[in-house]
Amino acid sequence: MNGNQSGSARTPAEARRAPLGTKADRETVRRHNLSLVLRAVHDQVEATRAGVAARVGLTRAAVSSLVEQLLESGFLSESGKTFSGQAGRPGTVLKIARTGVAGIGVEINVDYVSVCVVDLAGTDRVRLVEHLDNRGAAPAEVFGRAARIAARALGSAAEQELWPVGAELALPGLVSGGSVLQAPNLGWTAVPAEAPFERALAALRPEEPALPVRSENEANLAALAELWFGGLGDVRSFLYLTGEIGVGGALVLGGELLRGANGFAGEIGHVSVSDDGPRCRCGSRGCLEQYAGQSALLRAAGLDELSGASGVAELERRAREGDSAALAALAGAGRALGRALSGAVNLFDPDAVVLGGIYRPLLPWLAPPVGAELETRVVSGLWPAAGSRVRASSPAADAARGAAALVVQDVLTDPVAYAPRAAH
Amino acid sequence: MNGNQSGSARTPAEARRAPLGTKADRETVRRHNLSLVLRAVHDQVEATRAGVAARVGLTRAAVSSLVEQLLESGFLSESGKTFSGQAGRPGTVLKIARTGVAGIGVEINVDYVSVCVVDLAGTDRVRLVEHLDNRGAAPAEVFGRAARIAARALGSAAEQELWPVGAELALPGLVSGGSVLQAPNLGWTAVPAEAPFERALAALRPEEPALPVRSENEANLAALAELWFGGLGDVRSFLYLTGEIGVGGALVLGGELLRGANGFAGEIGHVSVSDDGPRCRCGSRGCLEQYAGQSALLRAAGLDELSGASGVAELERRAREGDSAALAALAGAGRALGRALSGAVNLFDPDAVVLGGIYRPLLPWLAPPVGAELETRVVSGLWPAAGSRVRASSPAADAARGAAALVVQDVLTDPVAYAPRAAH
Repeated sequence: MNGNQSGSARTPAEARRAPLGTKADRETVRRHNLSLVLRAVHDQVEATRAGVAARVGLTRAAVSSLVEQLLESGFLSESGKTFSGQAGRPGTVLKIARTGVAGIGVEINVDYVSVCVVDLAGTDRVRLVEHLDNRGAAPAEVFGRAARIAARALGSAAEQELWPVGAELALPGLVSGGSVLQAPNLGWTAVPAEAPFERALAALRPEEPALPVRSENEANLAALAELWFGGLGDVRSFLYLTGEIGVGGALVLGGELLRGANGFAGEIGHVSVSDDGPRCRCGSRGCLEQYAGQSALLRAAGLDELSGASGVAELERRAREGDSAALAALAGAGRALGRALSGAVNLFDPDAVVLGGIYRPLLPWLAPPVGAELETRVVSGLWPAAGSRVRASSPAADAARGAAALVVQDVLTDPVAYAPRAAH
Repeated sequence: MNGNQSGSARTPAEARRAPLGTKADRETVRRHNLSLVLRAVHDQVEATRAGVAARVGLTRAAVSSLVEQLLESGFLSESGKTFSGQAGRPGTVLKIARTGVAGIGVEINVDYVSVCVVDLAGTDRVRLVEHLDNRGAAPAEVFGRAARIAARALGSAAEQELWPVGAELALPGLVSGGSVLQAPNLGWTAVPAEAPFERALAALRPEEPALPVRSENEANLAALAELWFGGLGDVRSFLYLTGEIGVGGALVLGGELLRGANGFAGEIGHVSVSDDGPRCRCGSRGCLEQYAGQSALLRAAGLDELSGASGVAELERRAREGDSAALAALAGAGRALGRALSGAVNLFDPDAVVLGGIYRPLLPWLAPPVGAELETRVVSGLWPAAGSRVRASSPAADAARGAAALVVQDVLTDPVAYAPRAAH
């Protein structure tokens, strides 16, 4: 499910080695072309057969045949006649189906579970969030809770005639091979995730076929959501930071998520800001999280570090009123963020830095010190106007939606693999 | 020339959108297949037509026709009969040509110019190094010197019947659009590079057609050389650091160079190691270069910071003899390197860190403190045995060779574009 998101999955050099147009199996070509046509309609929101043909470089006849198959399988719908805006006779408007095949994303974080169901267009159709404390709970209990929330969301989805074909877990830690290798803020080490969640969900839905489950780091999925649904415009390369109990990070370059050799890239929360700084749960010292994580920030402002979302809201209120402890805490966190980000910008050369999670409401106070550090420390000299390059994340783009949309990406890549046996 | 090296040049998503096997122009397919066959022989060192056919998935007849064209154009040579090692009758051995089309790389660094000519196999065939001080010289003078050295190397290449079809400049700074945007250690800001070098070289070879010139950061090219010619084995994702007057860096993920949104990625020399550290020429404070650059290291050891290669050799001699100032200087530089590398490893998740330039001979003293910092600070917990992941660069892989080989990569990608009008 994640393979096609990875920068390292298949290098251009390898792709180049694949022979072209020789033994290419007709069936493979047709499956590929079905994906082309489906994506073309998906990307254009509304399309005509002629428009799709022009866009993908296939003949009008070939496109019509492919569209017919996609309509029959319920991936597309069509409505009325319209003028295409181009010269020529009117065509039927093709749209991506708003019912049928869908994806579900399940974000399990330290103090909440958020579940999102999206349709083939990536639209957020069902959302269920529960604020609860997953610290100290056994992993089996956490997956049980998450499965119950997911099952309720699937119930709502069914009422909208949406049938997720896979589930993606968004997890706050190092995720690899279906397990959480390390999630310091949950206190988890080497905890299997996909299998227990799949079993827990299957047990709640004994009449349904088990939903295949995949998993990924939550910041990576939030970054993909930002890429696909955020307001980044032409920006295709960015650093993504999300402030939670921990500080998550992800890197997107040229529209591709950088996952690293083992899937652990983006751990900016554990970049060292100060050599002799406070000890971190990860075993190191002076990690960014110890300066700009939610707990550190609340503590520095004189608030209860365990007060969660209400504490962050209180911090924002105090900052707005000019409370000096709140302002000093935000200035300190901003400098630490700016230092860690400067190093990351020197290493990555992104077009923008996107701040999400608790940093979104706090950006008015964080942006000036972050910008000042970037201006001084980024060697390319490209960040003097850091103001326009340091952005708040989009509220419509979060890890749960990114997770759900990743399921849908798989469908768009090979719709035949997900075509329903019989129409619902 | 750099396009196909970039992780962001053409994303898998875009590649997926290209329609397959429909209007595919026969000529395009043949050019593509010529490249496939040429690369197959290149990668295997020795090959038979049957072996190539099996490898690239084309018919034996198609491969024979393509091989014929490549032999006629002088890209391949063939010799004797041999048994292929597989069952079946003996075939003729195909080899990549060792004369004819070639590439030239020109590294202009702070205190040396190194020129390398490679053949189509990437083998270093001509090498000319001059130690000189480029600091304080006007850029025009530096490019004039480099062009004279390159012209002499081209003379040697011609005697070996090697004809470079392009030149790649390796430059110690931020390189973009044919210019050096910033090279603090040369004192250059916004200095055009490709055009002045091309003119200077053309003026020295009035009878030859002008050689097209491209340019790239030297650490990026050294990292590519390490990837292609170093002893990394299966490692396809690594951080590359080169200690020179400055500290250069590059990132390779899944066999692809990460260039960043503007081509400025990898600037690890200006990652901040200490907030209140010494001021750096780049305008920031506490940059890695101020702790682990050649000048800082020599100064800390009580040696003349301008003593260059001989100073580094002296430092190595003193360390071997147990001189306490030398050992303390190396320990301090190692800790600084380890701190900067830990942040980079947390961000990138590479399989290895490769240390080149002056770090190669000094690695016995740098590796222990670097390893200790990585072990403590890398959150994935994958670096306890950092000893096997921190490696010295290969002496056979440097920026000049990487630059020359990049020219050859272009030839391998589209040999038709470089086919000689008449055989030499």
